[in-house]
Amino acid sequence: MPHRIVIIGGDGAGMSAASQAKRRDPSLDIVAFEQGPVVSYSACSIPYYVGRVVDTMEPLIARTPEAFRQMGIDVRTGHEVQLIDRVNQRIQVQAAGTRRWEPYDDLVLATGASPIIPPWPGVDADGVFVVKTLEDGRRIRQYIETRHPRTAVVVGGGYIGLEMAENLQAWGIQTTLLEQQAQVMPTFLDADMASLVNQALTALAVTVSLNDEVLGFQITQGRVRAVQTRHQEWPADLVILGLGVRPQSALAREAGIPLGIKDAVRVNPYLKTQVPHVWAVGDVAETRHLVTGKPIYIALATVANKQGRIAGLNLSGSTLTFSGVLGTAITRVGPTEIARTGLTPADAEAADLAVRTTRVETETKLGYFPDVSTITVKLVAETGTGRLLGAQIVGGPGSGKRIDTIAAAVTARMTVTDLIDLDLAYAPPFSDVWDPVQVAARTLVSKI
Amino acid sequence: MPHRIVIIGGDGAGMSAASQAKRRDPSLDIVAFEQGPVVSYSACSIPYYVGRVVDTMEPLIARTPEAFRQMGIDVRTGHEVQLIDRVNQRIQVQAAGTRRWEPYDDLVLATGASPIIPPWPGVDADGVFVVKTLEDGRRIRQYIETRHPRTAVVVGGGYIGLEMAENLQAWGIQTTLLEQQAQVMPTFLDADMASLVNQALTALAVTVSLNDEVLGFQITQGRVRAVQTRHQEWPADLVILGLGVRPQSALAREAGIPLGIKDAVRVNPYLKTQVPHVWAVGDVAETRHLVTGKPIYIALATVANKQGRIAGLNLSGSTLTFSGVLGTAITRVGPTEIARTGLTPADAEAADLAVRTTRVETETKLGYFPDVSTITVKLVAETGTGRLLGAQIVGGPGSGKRIDTIAAAVTARMTVTDLIDLDLAYAPPFSDVWDPVQVAARTLVSKI
Repeated sequence: MPHRIVIIGGDGAGMSAASQAKRRDPSLDIVAFEQGPVVSYSACSIPYYVGRVVDTMEPLIARTPEAFRQMGIDVRTGHEVQLIDRVNQRIQVQAAGTRRWEPYDDLVLATGASPIIPPWPGVDADGVFVVKTLEDGRRIRQYIETRHPRTAVVVGGGYIGLEMAENLQAWGIQTTLLEQQAQVMPTFLDADMASLVNQALTALAVTVSLNDEVLGFQITQGRVRAVQTRHQEWPADLVILGLGVRPQSALAREAGIPLGIKDAVRVNPYLKTQVPHVWAVGDVAETRHLVTGKPIYIALATVANKQGRIAGLNLSGSTLTFSGVLGTAITRVGPTEIARTGLTPADAEAADLAVRTTRVETETKLGYFPDVSTITVKLVAETGTGRLLGAQIVGGPGSGKRIDTIAAAVTARMTVTDLIDLDLAYAPPFSDVWDPVQVAARTLVSKI
Repeated sequence: MPHRIVIIGGDGAGMSAASQAKRRDPSLDIVAFEQGPVVSYSACSIPYYVGRVVDTMEPLIARTPEAFRQMGIDVRTGHEVQLIDRVNQRIQVQAAGTRRWEPYDDLVLATGASPIIPPWPGVDADGVFVVKTLEDGRRIRQYIETRHPRTAVVVGGGYIGLEMAENLQAWGIQTTLLEQQAQVMPTFLDADMASLVNQALTALAVTVSLNDEVLGFQITQGRVRAVQTRHQEWPADLVILGLGVRPQSALAREAGIPLGIKDAVRVNPYLKTQVPHVWAVGDVAETRHLVTGKPIYIALATVANKQGRIAGLNLSGSTLTFSGVLGTAITRVGPTEIARTGLTPADAEAADLAVRTTRVETETKLGYFPDVSTITVKLVAETGTGRLLGAQIVGGPGSGKRIDTIAAAVTARMTVTDLIDLDLAYAPPFSDVWDPVQVAARTLVSKI
């Protein structure tokens, strides 16, 4: 009998594990159960599908079930896993009304995350959407195309909220972004950097309401018409909830598989759970922060794909560890690029690290180029040692991906001085002779 | 008496040293002698001045002599240093026809480099230019504006050659780029990557002639009319020589200050020469390659400014070392971005390092964005260890500065696997879930 690997969940993490393992060891018998109709899709693209940057769904599907089957991976969509029997190493699967047991030698939990939907009165009305699956995207766009909403409210100022606001505004829908906290992107950026994002939203004519809290919805004939908040009633023919996600770990919990931070499945650096022959990857699993060394829950496609790759290699004979993450993330609001990596000062404080910060505004390239933009770089470094801990960037085209240089530097445990010394690329159309991240580092070094 | 620092050469390296030292220790008496009329200018911007990206010279001058004087630095333009008397710690300076001796406690050689001009017959004709000083730029642009050349030949396929070809073509001048070797950018890129640059030049309607050698010039009434090469006679109302530079180290050599590689002034990691109280920075000085640890001569503004900064800090009491360079560089040809860092396979072979390489073509962002471009990443890693040694990138907008991530990784002595593990920023408008540099790394890791 070939070794049988069963994967629960057919998105990026699970299918990365499947394809990596199969490529390394074609003798493996790999089967993936996905409750939805598609596997391996780009959830991050849904806002751009809604905004018609991409016209059809096809480009959002990285690989079809058929393509996986041609690789020798048995993909079964429309299959819902209901139980994990870890004693007998089998799972109970339901499809088309019937249930059966499927045995496994190794089990990979890749059940992902589900959007947070508070129990607000009226939250299930017509016109209120979350942004998670391709089906969500299809329904939102269809709603726009058939109901022609003139006003929209996006609840939640995280990256999904920002991206949805931009893409609704692109339809000419008058959009309001509500955020409960005093700034947008509260878990991503410091307040000073977030205020630059506010400006970018305002430039797109998106209304931003901070410190605002949803109380309920005004519904007419089953359809949403307004959002009632602490501040006022916001007209809304369309409401998007972008309130973050939580791990879909109920199946694991019911099977007695230990959970960790924020109820994500606890894994060791090999991506194994605390139960023999059970692994977990992607949005259902916890990960580790590279700087603090502590468990962290980050539901991002990059993390999911990296974990899937490592698990797949380990399932086919390697003993690799997943080193961890920095929470690197990027998005845009119109022409404004927003990126971050590592610790914010608040994160650092929570980890008992004393820090110094600097915030420097400079330009993306030499100032005489017609397409030059402002770029603001904020750096966070440990007091005394000067070790670089994190960074935030907000600026025009060419700004955001500069975060990668800092992500590499933080990973390598470089100091602010090391960042100054880095031999980064310079030519007038790309940068000043000191790259903006180095200009910031030069300011910070004098404070340490 | 205050400690007196004398700087020879008022460009980036020298003036960085001056301003860094003065800022740290205002008690220092700092004087800078510059033979030309301006200090601290952006030589790298000259092609863009010629091409009218920038209309006036002012934006090319980072800081005027007057601004330095306000910082307390005594800048003397039009002053040529003729001798260094290292025994008596003084230099002989000539200005306005008179000579005098100036004493120093510390001397900083920042005399830069001069363009290579082969002794070709006719090379001093009207219409043949080098690209080094602002005055060169002014003369080239004036020549274009008054003589309306219809054809041009750029001799040399390095980055200055490429940038001049782009900017001459922008005037509608039919431009030919001549390169003696079998590829453009021979010291920058491998032949396979250089062929992509050829395509970019061709797309701009620049004619490229490889394996071609200048024999002389056809001159009519003192003005250039054509370039005679081994292949053919190329019509040329204008000729640009972009054949690289050599260090202006004659003054140092005559004073018995030891030279190193390519006749650049030998310096230790503190930027001191082998003669007491004499330092050297910028294009006149040698530097060290971070990967091979060997001396190397690289005349780039980034290196010059970094060396100037370190020397300035050391002149004001620090004992910092300049760690070295990777030869990171970037340029563009129309929309095509070209970047490199670290060792090419040929460099590695010369350093007795066995390498594996990979070249991967992918896309700058998710394929459905209308402004997506092709990006080709070539990685070089050491066989066995997998240590990342270098990279080359050619691609559309958003490609080039990705080299910085690899430069940071090479500096940190990361392996190809470490590059795969890096938490780089992903969102659909910026990258696929695996950044192109990681896609290349994933291909390479299987070869090691």
